[in-house]
Amino acid sequence: MRCEMQFVLEGQDPACGARAGRLMLPHGEVPTPVFMPVGTQAAVKAVGQDDLEKIGARMVLANAYHLYLRPGVDIIAAAGGIHAFMNWPRPILTDSGGFQVFSLAELNKVTPQGVAFQSHLDGSRHFFTPEKAIDVQIGIGADIIMCFDECTEYPATHDQAADSMRMTLGWAERCLRHWKERGAGGQALFGIVQGGVYEDLREECAAALAAMDFPGYAIGGVSVGEPNEDMARITAFTAPLLPQDKPRYLMGVGSPEDMLFAIEQGVDMFDCVMPTRNARNGTLFTSTGKVNIKNAAHLRDFGPLDPACPCPACRRHTRAYLAHLYRSGEISALRLNTLHNLFFMVKLAAAARDAILRGEYAAFRRAFLKAYSTNNGGTEQA
Amino acid sequence: MRCEMQFVLEGQDPACGARAGRLMLPHGEVPTPVFMPVGTQAAVKAVGQDDLEKIGARMVLANAYHLYLRPGVDIIAAAGGIHAFMNWPRPILTDSGGFQVFSLAELNKVTPQGVAFQSHLDGSRHFFTPEKAIDVQIGIGADIIMCFDECTEYPATHDQAADSMRMTLGWAERCLRHWKERGAGGQALFGIVQGGVYEDLREECAAALAAMDFPGYAIGGVSVGEPNEDMARITAFTAPLLPQDKPRYLMGVGSPEDMLFAIEQGVDMFDCVMPTRNARNGTLFTSTGKVNIKNAAHLRDFGPLDPACPCPACRRHTRAYLAHLYRSGEISALRLNTLHNLFFMVKLAAAARDAILRGEYAAFRRAFLKAYSTNNGGTEQA
Repeated sequence: MRCEMQFVLEGQDPACGARAGRLMLPHGEVPTPVFMPVGTQAAVKAVGQDDLEKIGARMVLANAYHLYLRPGVDIIAAAGGIHAFMNWPRPILTDSGGFQVFSLAELNKVTPQGVAFQSHLDGSRHFFTPEKAIDVQIGIGADIIMCFDECTEYPATHDQAADSMRMTLGWAERCLRHWKERGAGGQALFGIVQGGVYEDLREECAAALAAMDFPGYAIGGVSVGEPNEDMARITAFTAPLLPQDKPRYLMGVGSPEDMLFAIEQGVDMFDCVMPTRNARNGTLFTSTGKVNIKNAAHLRDFGPLDPACPCPACRRHTRAYLAHLYRSGEISALRLNTLHNLFFMVKLAAAARDAILRGEYAAFRRAFLKAYSTNNGGTEQA
Repeated sequence: MRCEMQFVLEGQDPACGARAGRLMLPHGEVPTPVFMPVGTQAAVKAVGQDDLEKIGARMVLANAYHLYLRPGVDIIAAAGGIHAFMNWPRPILTDSGGFQVFSLAELNKVTPQGVAFQSHLDGSRHFFTPEKAIDVQIGIGADIIMCFDECTEYPATHDQAADSMRMTLGWAERCLRHWKERGAGGQALFGIVQGGVYEDLREECAAALAAMDFPGYAIGGVSVGEPNEDMARITAFTAPLLPQDKPRYLMGVGSPEDMLFAIEQGVDMFDCVMPTRNARNGTLFTSTGKVNIKNAAHLRDFGPLDPACPCPACRRHTRAYLAHLYRSGEISALRLNTLHNLFFMVKLAAAARDAILRGEYAAFRRAFLKAYSTNNGGTEQA
């Protein structure tokens, strides 16, 4: 009964917490830091698995709540698991669905035992317990699965955040026990640190989870509406509390700047819907900052979106064409924009890794942020 | 002053009018019969130019009315023409926009001189003459351009159809003259036969156009709401009236069955929005007939959409996954479905060509229709 995941640290920046590692998972190796595109419904919005391979994505996310409701775990299991279902041969991580149960579904009742809720799709009634969330995720079959947690909302008082965190801790113990009972075989289970914006609660939660000895750890409950300073403070405070030899995953973060900040604090894994959602709204990341492709100025710009970018959209098309597609409501605009933003994030994490291995992470981050702020002095604002 | 297009006939089926040919155009060769995906706004809906290359599309359509309004001919010309603008290196045909001026725009006035209309996008006022339509298309820079015509609506009385056809004939003469005055260089100009469902009018129009000696000919004004028998009758009647040594293009047709029928009558070129529109609505062509991917039965079908199909969607994904994507509202469903339907049409035209070259077209068509009707006896209906 041992987890099939291995994690090795390959480098540590001498001047900060940034680290380079390698996750070895049943479906392949993932160099870290890594940005994982979000494929909520077993599909990354607007792109195909062929596209994800083309841009070098090493690992993607899916969501247990969504997949449990549609198409259902039985269908994914009958397909041979999520890798076969979506024909994505590389590693996958599933979020437990805790966040969605609390944010999307109509809640009927939360007790320490579990959560009764109604589907946001059809109103059907369901009951999730920590054990059930593990069973669902084992049925789906990702390489990494997450504990069922309550994502403490923002704002929350210290008492509210403490109660919520302690319930999450109790659920984490049950998840771990059930995962071990089920064999702890194909999936690595990650514990999730909650505690809101309160450092004492984050510390208590991290210590308790570390004592349980999970294969990996996540920082949850950030990027939920709190000021960016709080997010940065909590990330910087919490990351070093997590076991040094285990992978660290910052859930739902973030922007290019936030990702580079968190890497400096020693975080290894990232996911965020922002790159894909921004892409569909016409906001594109470039080496000199954000570009709003809806701006009229781009209609006559026959250069690439980002001359420094070798992504499929920048290699093949001009800003003028991307701007035309977007204005014309063409579906292909969504795909090209998404390809570009995902490529940007995936390559940014890979470049950060290279810089760490060279021992030059701080300089790398400084140079990136300087170039990335160029557009902020001009007319480009997202 | 000569057109850069050449057309050679490479084979003629001994038992019917079907013919195999080769169009040599400034941007490459196109074996015929050919199905041209429709890229109205310089983009085929839901797929990229990389996808079109992958499925073997040899030539695509764009629309002068749409491109004239957005992004404007000046932008396309400044990009270096439509091939550079959309970065599609292979041949392109533009429809003159006559059909859209009459069907989409708010019409202000039609006179023999031209048509005053308001943009369907912003209500701006424009005046199209045959000369202007040629100038617009020369500015866009496709390999093949079309005369500005009035697409006679259905139903129309014999008098209405005759008046309309004669106006189209007058416009065709002006298009031809203006095209020659402009050098007749990069583009091949096709004349369009109108005349509604009336054979005498079709005959008169075809003869008059043939006497003008266009580089190629189209049959227009079909698939505009008339019964399928009328479409078939007019196609069968008109195609043989067109010069044997020139390419023949049936505009806006059609279904797999209609295309194979028209090939038998000696038509060489086809375009239709049906494969792409059907794909976005979940109706997919297969070797055994149409499949509605929305049907619940597909949710647990872990085989490919069409085991006989080597398209990217069928090679990589199952019916279950395509059905899940469609139900989940994923944008990638539209791309995969479109890839499949376009591949189906492009390959069907190519297979028809092979059969013609083998002298076995009638048997090929019979075998296709037999297999294609399989689903009609079952539960699959579009």
